[in-house]
Parts: sequence; structure tokens; C-alpha cells
Amino acid sequence: MGTLNQFAGSTCLVTGGLGFIGSNMANSLATAGAHVRVLDALIEQHGGDERNINPSLSAIRVVKGNIGDDEIVEELLDGVDFVFNIAGQVSHHESMVDPIRDAEINVLSQLRFLESLRRCQPSAVVVHTSTRQVYGTPQYLPVDEKHPTVPRDINGVNKLAGENYHRLYGTVHGIKTVSLRLSNVFGPNQSLQKTGLGFLPVFLARAMKGLLLEVFGDGQQLRDCLYITDVVEALGKAALQVAAGAVNPGEVINLGHTEVLSLLQIAELVVAKAGEGSTVSCIPWPEELARIDIGGFSGDYAKAHRLLNWNPQVAFADGVEQTLDFYRRHPWYL
Amino acid sequence: MGTLNQFAGSTCLVTGGLGFIGSNMANSLATAGAHVRVLDALIEQHGGDERNINPSLSAIRVVKGNIGDDEIVEELLDGVDFVFNIAGQVSHHESMVDPIRDAEINVLSQLRFLESLRRCQPSAVVVHTSTRQVYGTPQYLPVDEKHPTVPRDINGVNKLAGENYHRLYGTVHGIKTVSLRLSNVFGPNQSLQKTGLGFLPVFLARAMKGLLLEVFGDGQQLRDCLYITDVVEALGKAALQVAAGAVNPGEVINLGHTEVLSLLQIAELVVAKAGEGSTVSCIPWPEELARIDIGGFSGDYAKAHRLLNWNPQVAFADGVEQTLDFYRRHPWYL
Repeated sequence: MGTLNQFAGSTCLVTGGLGFIGSNMANSLATAGAHVRVLDALIEQHGGDERNINPSLSAIRVVKGNIGDDEIVEELLDGVDFVFNIAGQVSHHESMVDPIRDAEINVLSQLRFLESLRRCQPSAVVVHTSTRQVYGTPQYLPVDEKHPTVPRDINGVNKLAGENYHRLYGTVHGIKTVSLRLSNVFGPNQSLQKTGLGFLPVFLARAMKGLLLEVFGDGQQLRDCLYITDVVEALGKAALQVAAGAVNPGEVINLGHTEVLSLLQIAELVVAKAGEGSTVSCIPWPEELARIDIGGFSGDYAKAHRLLNWNPQVAFADGVEQTLDFYRRHPWYL
Repeated sequence: MGTLNQFAGSTCLVTGGLGFIGSNMANSLATAGAHVRVLDALIEQHGGDERNINPSLSAIRVVKGNIGDDEIVEELLDGVDFVFNIAGQVSHHESMVDPIRDAEINVLSQLRFLESLRRCQPSAVVVHTSTRQVYGTPQYLPVDEKHPTVPRDINGVNKLAGENYHRLYGTVHGIKTVSLRLSNVFGPNQSLQKTGLGFLPVFLARAMKGLLLEVFGDGQQLRDCLYITDVVEALGKAALQVAAGAVNPGEVINLGHTEVLSLLQIAELVVAKAGEGSTVSCIPWPEELARIDIGGFSGDYAKAHRLLNWNPQVAFADGVEQTLDFYRRHPWYL
């Protein structure tokens, strides 16, 4: 991957680096020759696992701790060139059950982290992972960055606050921040056992076990799913472009995919690729999820193409095949 | 005031009730015959003062405490019909100096308060005071509720999160919430000594002392200022309309004024009315304020007119006269 080779010799901090996206980023950076520090609180239900880090990569130093813990963070930030700030609570449903915990993680800890960074390492480039959840129910498709942000659940409200902080630390304080709004990401290292991480890990796990895949409602809600290598590439490109001054501090940029599929299509494709004889069935929406559902979504990533020269490379079917292959070789995830 | 008479006999909780807007609300409700409970943390620099409560109103019970304190809040919520949730940190500048404190007050405490309410008194009507600051720099004037929310400072980010919580507790949990986005409010009981409460108290205090009024930049930034009695009326109308089911839970509604004046016009009018020989001068923007300035603003209040049958009644010049008269009679505010 040409992009990540440019991080060779640099020092990178990956927050949430034992989780799905974070561990892929950390492993890729270390493989490319970067000195990688990982900070992860290993919060129950978040899907982080030390086994996600490739043990052959001695260039990765793992520290367990919270991004809101000044002392740990200040030591880890010392001399850092790039921060990939990926830590967060990601479950929409869980945020409705325990909203205060979600706010402490996604709002307060993010702000404490940025304050530590402003004080100790203000020259670092910071790439933050935001989410399409900040938009709420789309008023038009595909959704571009000018679309109003009216989140439908507490997680969306809190992630938006965290994203806004990154924007302001860019525009007001001149920190080299950029936030990427991700859609549904899938691929290796995603926990298939924890609940609340979205429909894709549930589909993949059940399909591999030959179980019924349940799709809510009529299954016609659209999604553009992103394969993890495309996201890692985007995070890398965003960091380099901000570092080079080609992207203004504080920018917010969508990722997305040309392939926009219905949940039913996604489920059927996963079932076909898994080949374990599972089936797909539409069931009524559970009430607690219907109330926070955003309907169909697809993201306009023209800005990512323009500013980062990024396009998604992996077709959904290919990504599913690679993902299934990974889990077959690493059955402890199931 | 016909609107507030409809609260006679009801039990109302006013958070931030020792502050400027809160104390006016509490005094007006008690005068109209409501049983009023006031909760106020009297946080330094926030302008709250026990002397703001009319001592002749024995129907007001004042409790000092934080809206995030479960125990105090649960006791105060017991049997409450209406909540006017006005508490908050309001200084934009202060939020940039100590963003974590602003987030603890305007985000975490708001969420804790709503959780207490959902658990203990979910039938209460909740009117929340939000701010035009959530919009950021206007993309068009006047700004309506569909305008994107891109706040320019930490206070705007945090107030937006608090507003979003109120919206979700309405749309998802069915709590009868409504948020009003206020512009610059002025009138009796506003602290003139504390800094960071906006330009109007500064202008009023300096004009009454015959001092120079400093306007930043060219002074052409527009503002629609709201006199406190118009705001009290809107808060009351919003509560009654939500209670009656005429406004959907979770609505967000602008207040605004037909009179849109430049800061220079506002300063000159205040000077003329004060009659103490003070003068107005334009000075360059202080750098730390220029970076968070939103430019000109005026709010489209057509939705408030339609849903609440509300219109501003007090002309700016009349409001300034009444305000100056109040401070002349209560010189300890100066």
C-alpha cells in the first residue's frame, strides 16, 4: 500500500487501537515501518482485544488506558507525529440504555484528549473517525457534508459533539485535525460475539454458523458498506494531506461507496458466500430499534475524492469473501 | 399577562432560577399563582444571585444545587407539572478557556437531569432554553430552524448536544420537551458586573457610568435582541402548547425579533437612552474573540408564530428604557 509507506519512521498513536478499525490501522502502520503506540481502554462490549494486534510486529507498543486520562495520554503523545483517534463507544442501542456512559466516553474523554494534545503535542496531525450517524434520517441521497446533522440517537449526538470539538480545535486553535464520517465498516478483526456493533458482524457470524439471518422491516433500507482496507487507506491519506497543508485544519469528510445495497441484498450475498445453508427472513422492527432507525443511507464521497484522492477499491462481494476467509482461519472470533 | 395566569395552581421547577432569565421566569410564574421551585448551582461567573428572586413571593422555594445531582433533582421533580430548564454556562469565551467545565455543565449535567426526569417524573412538560449560537456563522438571513448547525465555539457545541438530548427525549422517549433557540436577551436581573454574558450588559453598564462603549470591527454585525418579557411569554406559551399536544415532543423553535439592528446602532441607542454622556468607538477585534465570532445574525421566528402564536411585543428602544430604569432603581447590579 503506497500510502502507508509514507509513515515509515514516523511515530503514530492509535487510540482504540485494540478494536476493529484501530487494530487494522495499527498493524498496517507498523507493517509500513512506523513506530506505533496503541492506547485502548478495552471497555467491555466495545470489541477491543489484544489478539487483534499482530504479535510479529514488535514496533507496536500497547498501553491500556482511557483517552481522557491526562497522565497516560501526555506520556503517549510525547514526540508523536500522527494521531489516529479512533476510540469510542459505537453502539447506538447501548447509548440509549446508558446515555451518560456514552457521553463520558464520546464527549468528555474526547475533549480531555484534545486538551492534552493542545497542551503537549499541538504539532501532531489528528485524524478522527466520525460516523454517518451524525446526519440522522437522510433528507436526500447520497448525503453530502452540507446535509443537516440531526442525529436520531444519543450516540449520534455525542459523536457529533466529539467531531465538532475536532473541527474547532482545527479552525480555532490551528491543530491539524480532520474528521472522516464512516459508514458501515467490515472486515477482519471485528468482534462477531459482542452485540451492538451493527448488522454486518451479526450477519457474518450467523451465516458462518448456518443460522437464520433476520432483516428488520422490508429489508429495503440502503447502505454503502466500506471494507476495512479502504478505510485504512482513507485515514492514511487524510493524515498526509492535512500534514502537507493540502487540507485545511478542521475539515469534515464523508467516506462512502459506489455500491449501494439494500439490507436484504447484503444479507443474501453474505449467506451465498458463506455457503453454510443459512437463510434470510424479514421480521418486524423491534420497537426500541425502530425509534432510532435512520432509514436508508448512502454517502457522497466526492469531497474525499477531491481532497484526498480517495476512492473505495474493494467491491462488497470481494470484501465479504476476504472477511469470511479471515474468520475461517481465526475461529476464536466466532 | 394572560399566558402565565394559566400556570396558577400548577407546580413548576425553574433550573438556573436565580439567574437572569430563570429568575424572571420564576418571579412571573409565582406572581401568576404557580408553586415555584428554583434550582440553581450559583456557579461563579454565571450571574445568578439570590436577590433576583422577589422576596415578597413566598410561593418560590429556592434550592442550591446542580441539575446533574440525582438526589436533589429527584426530590425537586416530585409532583412537578412544568420544568423550565434554563440552567447553563453561557459564556462563549469562557468555554474556550475551560472547555471541560463547559461540557460538564452543558452536556453531562443536562443529560443526568433528563435521565432523572425520565425515571421520576416523565409526565412533566420540559421547556429548554437553547441558543442561536448552535447555528454558527449564518449561511443566510434570517436563520430558520432548517439552517445547518455548525457552532463556532465550544459553548455552541455543548449547548447543541444539550438541545439534541431534549429533542431525543421527546422523539424517542415521548417526554414532552421543547427547546427554544434564543438570541441576545436583555432586561432586569441580568448581571452587569460579570464578564462573558454578552455585549448588552456590558453596553448598559458602561453607558450608565458614562464610559466609552467599544464595538468590535466596523460594528455592522446584525443582532435581533429580545426583551425578557417576550422571552418569558414564549417559554410559557411553549409549555402550554406542548402540554396541550399542539406541539410535538422534541420540537426546536427559534425566537427572534423584527427589529434587526447593527451593534453600532445598538450601542448608540443605549448611549442616547442612558443620557450619561458616554460615547461609542469602533476598535479592532480582540483575536481570541474574532476566531469564534459568528458575524451578523437574525432569527426567523415564523415557526414560533405558527406553533406558539408568539410574536415579540417590546421594541428595542422601549426595552432599553425599561432596563435602564430598573438598574437606576437597583444600583447594586452595576
